[in-house]
Amino acid sequence: MRFFSDNAAAVCPQVLQALGDANRLDTAYDGDQWSARLDDAFSNLFETPVRALWVSTGTAANCLGLAALCPPHGAILCHEFAHIEQDEAGAPGFFTHGAKLTLLPGAGAKIDPDAVEEACGRVRADVHQVQPAALSITNATEYGLSYRPAEVAALGAVARRHGLAFHMDGARFANAIAFTGSDPADVTWRAGVDVLSFGFVKNGGMNAEALIFFDPARAEVVPRLRKRAGHLQSKGRYLAAQLLAMLENGLWLDNARAANAAATALAEAAGHDRLVHPVEANELFVRMTADEAAAIRAQGFDFYDWAPGEVRLVTSWDQDMAAVGRLADAIRAL
Amino acid sequence: MRFFSDNAAAVCPQVLQALGDANRLDTAYDGDQWSARLDDAFSNLFETPVRALWVSTGTAANCLGLAALCPPHGAILCHEFAHIEQDEAGAPGFFTHGAKLTLLPGAGAKIDPDAVEEACGRVRADVHQVQPAALSITNATEYGLSYRPAEVAALGAVARRHGLAFHMDGARFANAIAFTGSDPADVTWRAGVDVLSFGFVKNGGMNAEALIFFDPARAEVVPRLRKRAGHLQSKGRYLAAQLLAMLENGLWLDNARAANAAATALAEAAGHDRLVHPVEANELFVRMTADEAAAIRAQGFDFYDWAPGEVRLVTSWDQDMAAVGRLADAIRAL
Amino acid sequence: MRFFSDNAAAVCPQVLQALGDANRLDTAYDGDQWSARLDDAFSNLFETPVRALWVSTGTAANCLGLAALCPPHGAILCHEFAHIEQDEAGAPGFFTHGAKLTLLPGAGAKIDPDAVEEACGRVRADVHQVQPAALSITNATEYGLSYRPAEVAALGAVARRHGLAFHMDGARFANAIAFTGSDPADVTWRAGVDVLSFGFVKNGGMNAEALIFFDPARAEVVPRLRKRAGHLQSKGRYLAAQLLAMLENGLWLDNARAANAAATALAEAAGHDRLVHPVEANELFVRMTADEAAAIRAQGFDFYDWAPGEVRLVTSWDQDMAAVGRLADAIRAL
Amino acid sequence: MRFFSDNAAAVCPQVLQALGDANRLDTAYDGDQWSARLDDAFSNLFETPVRALWVSTGTAANCLGLAALCPPHGAILCHEFAHIEQDEAGAPGFFTHGAKLTLLPGAGAKIDPDAVEEACGRVRADVHQVQPAALSITNATEYGLSYRPAEVAALGAVARRHGLAFHMDGARFANAIAFTGSDPADVTWRAGVDVLSFGFVKNGGMNAEALIFFDPARAEVVPRLRKRAGHLQSKGRYLAAQLLAMLENGLWLDNARAANAAATALAEAAGHDRLVHPVEANELFVRMTADEAAAIRAQGFDFYDWAPGEVRLVTSWDQDMAAVGRLADAIRAL
Repeated sequence: MRFFSDNAAAVCPQVLQALGDANRLDTAYDGDQWSARLDDAFSNLFETPVRALWVSTGTAANCLGLAALCPPHGAILCHEFAHIEQDEAGAPGFFTHGAKLTLLPGAGAKIDPDAVEEACGRVRADVHQVQPAALSITNATEYGLSYRPAEVAALGAVARRHGLAFHMDGARFANAIAFTGSDPADVTWRAGVDVLSFGFVKNGGMNAEALIFFDPARAEVVPRLRKRAGHLQSKGRYLAAQLLAMLENGLWLDNARAANAAATALAEAAGHDRLVHPVEANELFVRMTADEAAAIRAQGFDFYDWAPGEVRLVTSWDQDMAAVGRLADAIRAL
Repeated sequence: MRFFSDNAAAVCPQVLQALGDANRLDTAYDGDQWSARLDDAFSNLFETPVRALWVSTGTAANCLGLAALCPPHGAILCHEFAHIEQDEAGAPGFFTHGAKLTLLPGAGAKIDPDAVEEACGRVRADVHQVQPAALSITNATEYGLSYRPAEVAALGAVARRHGLAFHMDGARFANAIAFTGSDPADVTWRAGVDVLSFGFVKNGGMNAEALIFFDPARAEVVPRLRKRAGHLQSKGRYLAAQLLAMLENGLWLDNARAANAAATALAEAAGHDRLVHPVEANELFVRMTADEAAAIRAQGFDFYDWAPGEVRLVTSWDQDMAAVGRLADAIRAL
Repeated sequence: MRFFSDNAAAVCPQVLQALGDANRLDTAYDGDQWSARLDDAFSNLFETPVRALWVSTGTAANCLGLAALCPPHGAILCHEFAHIEQDEAGAPGFFTHGAKLTLLPGAGAKIDPDAVEEACGRVRADVHQVQPAALSITNATEYGLSYRPAEVAALGAVARRHGLAFHMDGARFANAIAFTGSDPADVTWRAGVDVLSFGFVKNGGMNAEALIFFDPARAEVVPRLRKRAGHLQSKGRYLAAQLLAMLENGLWLDNARAANAAATALAEAAGHDRLVHPVEANELFVRMTADEAAAIRAQGFDFYDWAPGEVRLVTSWDQDMAAVGRLADAIRAL
Repeated sequence: MRFFSDNAAAVCPQVLQALGDANRLDTAYDGDQWSARLDDAFSNLFETPVRALWVSTGTAANCLGLAALCPPHGAILCHEFAHIEQDEAGAPGFFTHGAKLTLLPGAGAKIDPDAVEEACGRVRADVHQVQPAALSITNATEYGLSYRPAEVAALGAVARRHGLAFHMDGARFANAIAFTGSDPADVTWRAGVDVLSFGFVKNGGMNAEALIFFDPARAEVVPRLRKRAGHLQSKGRYLAAQLLAMLENGLWLDNARAANAAATALAEAAGHDRLVHPVEANELFVRMTADEAAAIRAQGFDFYDWAPGEVRLVTSWDQDMAAVGRLADAIRAL
């Protein structure tokens, strides 16, 4: 039973069904009927007119979004453990033509408004220093923490004060919403977010993510950037159909709740002292000696060694709750 | 009945089936069992050890391939009507960090060895001029012509003489093979081709193309470039599975033959005088007055106006042969 | 006696003198008193408020200017023999992050408004094609032809109609002005030019060119781009001082007139039939057999073989008129 | 009396004289007799065959050097206060097409081998993380500390162990050599340095720096990169002549000694407790209250406020020693 990564999970049946339903001739690229419905579908969800584009990976979503917000000679402020800094092979540098990532500290990979303030304050306005142009946060964070609307709004305020555009990497946005119970609008545009990478692949999708612009004017150049990066699929309807299927009847939220529930069950078993971070999404970071980890693995459970004395468990939309129960028991028995 | 584009066609059932079959937990990115089989599957097809990577679009395949062959300060020789020049939104410039496309003439979008020779001869070796580093041809060409092995070999020879790496954009490689009956090896590596963008999407795939390196050493950097361009899908097995399904039992060749047969039927109906180019794949460029085109459209057929007095018809793997027959009749009746 | 290139000539004494005069402590970069005077000095010359920046090479001037006018996903229309296309090692691709040069034909390396119109007309507005964003002409052209104000204005009109920014590579702007007798304003901003690379190095300067923005708002980002490209010299006063020295008492125009006069003398000697292009600046392209060229060289004159049966002669601000006379005699004697 | 920056100082007379001496017709670009002598001149100095190229700024030297050492998808390890990180407007990102700077801590802006080891150890070798490709140190550092040969050799060893190319930003290399008395070879190639940006502008030059490759093979591509970045001056002899003048009779070392002597005199006046860093070149960072700084300024001395309670003084090759004495007295009198 694998608790490695939500990327490893299968695709949920409704998404697979949607691919079959979309399987007929239609206009190529994004001229089809499914792609045409995206703006409306996401505008409804976010209660404001948005521009929504499909892309096939979270890295592409993040970096196309950032390229629309930051010039080559600008800087993007992000957490030192942000996915864009740690796990995207330098893609932000590629898509932005060399913009800089300025790294901020923060517990649980969360960014504090003071850290943004401080980073902006350090920069002289002269031509010798790279000027901050954008702020990027991850929600839920790389350590599984979820931002509350007020926290995002505080970041939005400091971003606005310094003229920074505001991007949210929502690879696990659904998990964050499922945990906080926030209105998606409250934690995004109402809090000052300009662009959201809305993840679906980790949440039961196959290979479609949504890139959401809350100010459609900012999106204008993006279809060109997407094509120029080789991300305009010629049969785009199969991406759009995935997203629509995930939105229908709140499937995205149901899937995220299921993954979160599995994580919560494991967190309770682990108990406060073993948890490195609060569990606010579908990831757990658990203190465990090498011997303890080996003992758990011997019972058939797989997971990452994250750091010395620390393992990472990730739960998925389709996690077998019986297996979760057995793992919880195994952890309790340590 | 649409004869717009093979991109508009549906996905063939075996590919859809393969997605379902692959729908279980496996390792993320390209660590899964399907991705692991790609090198072997394509090595068998090409009768030599190759490195094969999935990507989701032809533009990504072309440009990742070219980025591996040409430095930022180099030039890529290609036809003035090549897809990389005309229809990829400047993606080669993006992926290569600004390399130059040097445009060559040639009937039917085919490149002649003399044109390559001439272009290389024009360049001084000094630092002021951009030095040619790669040659890229399209097979079948943008005008539906298919290269014979000897033609490619002649280009391979001139490329080698001038130290050019050799790339083939095979968005319609299957159609070219189906038409010429060539051995895939003969028209690629045996003729000097280093890298092939092997297209599947226009031929019944959903969103998986193969990028083939005949010299695996040249491919070494490409997984990093693919990730950096946001093209490493986290559930890569759904791309690999598409490619494997297309290779199984020669489905790729069957599909291409079907599309070609439809084109041939239309070509016969059009007759030699109406055809702008020989029909050697699944595209026809047909001389037709505006009135004639309107008359055909009135009978329910859709297609592009390509140029004044010229229309383009593209046939697909799933083209309804009855509709093809009716269109052929309509053309004959002009 | 060398007629190779105006780049080979010495620096004129006033420029050398100015370096000595500027040789004291002042603020670094462009914070010095000489740099501070540039905007005014060039605004006076052009009879309109301009923003003027020093850079050390024509390539840097051209490419920083173009980077301010064209996005990475745009195209720059230029002549197929333009310096930016032929002789800058792909620098436009570097500075613009991969923008495309779309090449136009035209006698004597001059661009005709119809060619611009035609090139723009060929481009579909969709995301697949690179959209033209700028027009760049060279004045005097690479073949030594000088644009008249009405010619530039006609290009400016077509550029405006298609939303193209308009750049002039004026590596030999002084020679063009000296030949046509035009008002510098008439052949630039009054004719629609947005940015001028105003060359001084070929005209007696050492290593300072001026980059002139007729709309200062367009220049706003350029100091950052200049620094980011390593072109912000820390002792910028020695560049500014060169430019000011060249402007003083019309030295730039005197130098250009001297170079042009030498060219004109040679042109008269060559006679109409030998001249490949009219001589309208300080370059001659002269039909000459290999034997004839050898005969001239035997008399101590050096120059380029430009093409079979054609040589190039370039004259400088300091060309020795006695030597010019002897070369003229030698040509006449052929 | 200004103690702002060595960039603000005048050009030393021998350099100005050299410009006059070089003022005659010669081959353009780097085909002249002065440029031709550079490799030999620097090979003599470094007691090994080197390739030496002139460039006009330290930023260009650093970034052309780094572009030759690090691919776009690689990382350059440098100090968090390195000039390439703090003061070059993102130029490394521009020249390398988006490579990443990985920032290391270290007292006095010096890098410790352990910090390099630790940074390399943190990176997984997979495609998701940017792989370190180069190490860059500054000598003398941004805080005026000079590396000893053994320190550089220790860094060279760790660089070699991790496959990192090794670059030294020597904007104040002369000052470091003057302070340590090291053999230039010992602190560079014998210690594992591959490329050196050898600064002359801060040390009495006008606008010529030397980019030194200790492995000439690594330099092969650099002339193309230099041209592509607009840094190939057409009258390059005026840069080469500056460098040759600085090398002649050890002028570069004399100038550096003079600047260092002025700094040392001030350091002695300040005394150990006021100095934030040891003074090992021509920069001092002095603890001083705002009132104290004001008192010094009231006596006619100018300098930077570096941080709260800290000022920076920089001395130049031509610093008036009488003024230095008066400033020393003023500091002592605080």
